[in-house]
Amino acid sequence: MSASPQFLFDFGSPNAFLSHEAIPAIAARTGVKFEYVPVLLGGIFKATNNRSPAETYAGVKNKREFHQLETERFLRRFKVKPYAWNPNFPVNTLNLMRAAIAAQLEGVFEQYVEAAFHHMWVEPKKMDDPDVAVAALTASGLDGAKLLARGQEAEVKAKLVANTQDAVERGAFGSPTFFVGKEMFFGKEQLRDVEEMIAS
Amino acid sequence: MSASPQFLFDFGSPNAFLSHEAIPAIAARTGVKFEYVPVLLGGIFKATNNRSPAETYAGVKNKREFHQLETERFLRRFKVKPYAWNPNFPVNTLNLMRAAIAAQLEGVFEQYVEAAFHHMWVEPKKMDDPDVAVAALTASGLDGAKLLARGQEAEVKAKLVANTQDAVERGAFGSPTFFVGKEMFFGKEQLRDVEEMIAS
Repeated sequence: MSASPQFLFDFGSPNAFLSHEAIPAIAARTGVKFEYVPVLLGGIFKATNNRSPAETYAGVKNKREFHQLETERFLRRFKVKPYAWNPNFPVNTLNLMRAAIAAQLEGVFEQYVEAAFHHMWVEPKKMDDPDVAVAALTASGLDGAKLLARGQEAEVKAKLVANTQDAVERGAFGSPTFFVGKEMFFGKEQLRDVEEMIAS
Repeated sequence: MSASPQFLFDFGSPNAFLSHEAIPAIAARTGVKFEYVPVLLGGIFKATNNRSPAETYAGVKNKREFHQLETERFLRRFKVKPYAWNPNFPVNTLNLMRAAIAAQLEGVFEQYVEAAFHHMWVEPKKMDDPDVAVAALTASGLDGAKLLARGQEAEVKAKLVANTQDAVERGAFGSPTFFVGKEMFFGKEQLRDVEEMIAS
C-alpha cells in the first residue's frame, strides 16, 4: 500500500469522532499515517438521497439499543472514551468544515481537527453559533476568528465542495467513510477491516 | 460459554443463506454447534416497524454498490459461494418457515434447512407456490407434502409465532440475527464477532 489510508469526516458525526479517537493506535500499530479529508456530510446526504441512521431508523424498535451496544463494543475494542452527547445535535457544521479547509491552508490542520472534535463531543458546544465557535477555538490556542473568516473565501468553499463531490463519486454515502487505496469502508465498525487491509 | 450460539433465520433472506454457508467452518473451528432458530422475518419487521435494507435504502445512491462490495468481502473471508438471485424475490416464506417447525417435530430439521435454503438460493424457485415447494422438497428426499401439511397445525403455527416474538423481545429487528448467550449480533458481517465471542 503506497497511498495513505483516508478518513473522510464531518465534525457533526459522533461516529466520526469515535473513529478519530481510535485512529492513533491503528496508525501506531500499522506504521501508517491517516490522511484526514474534510467533507460535508449534509452534502453527501443530499447528493445520495441518504439520511442519518437516526432519521432512517426513527421508530424502529430495538435498533437504537443495538446501535448503543455496537458503540459499547467499539469503545472496548479500541479502548477509547465515549463521546459526550451534544445537546445541540444536529449541529450545522458547514462553517466548521470550511474552517477545516482554512486550517489546512494556515498550516494548523491537526490542531484544528483536535479542537473542533473536542468542542463537539468532549466538551460539547453549539458550534454552529459563530461566537461560540470562535471562543472555543481560541480557548484551544487557535485563531478562531481568522479560521472562520477564511472559511468564507471562495477557494476554501470550493475545496470543501470538491472534497464532498469526490467522496460521492468514489462511493461514499455517509460518515465515517474510509479508503485504503480504492477500497472503501463505511462505519466505525469497519475500522477493523481498514486496519487489516493496511496490514495486508 | 455453556449455551450454543443461536442463528435466527428466515429462508427469505439471502444474507441468512450466506451465513448458513459460513457456519459449518465456524462451528468446526470453535468446536460448537449452532442452534438454528426458525423465525418469520416478516413478523419481526411488523413487530419492530422495520423494513428490508432494500426498501429502506431504495433510491440511496452508492448504497447498493457498497452492499455488493460487503457481500464480495464476506464470500472471500468465509470462502463460501455466492447465492443465485431468486427471481421471485421477495418470496413469502410463511409456509416454508412453518414447515421448518414441522421438520423439527418430524426429526428431519437439518435436512429440511439444507433443502429449503438450496431451493431458495442455489437453484432458486418460487417456493411460496405450494406445488413448487412440495416438488422441490420431495426432490431433496423429504416428504414435502407432509411437512407443508403439518405446518398448518395450530401447535406448529404457534411455535413459529413464539420464536418470532421471543426474538423481538431479545432485541432482534432483522435477519440474520445471532445470539451468543445474551449477546446479540446482527448481519452476516458480524459472524466474525460471533466467532470471536464463542472463542473467548
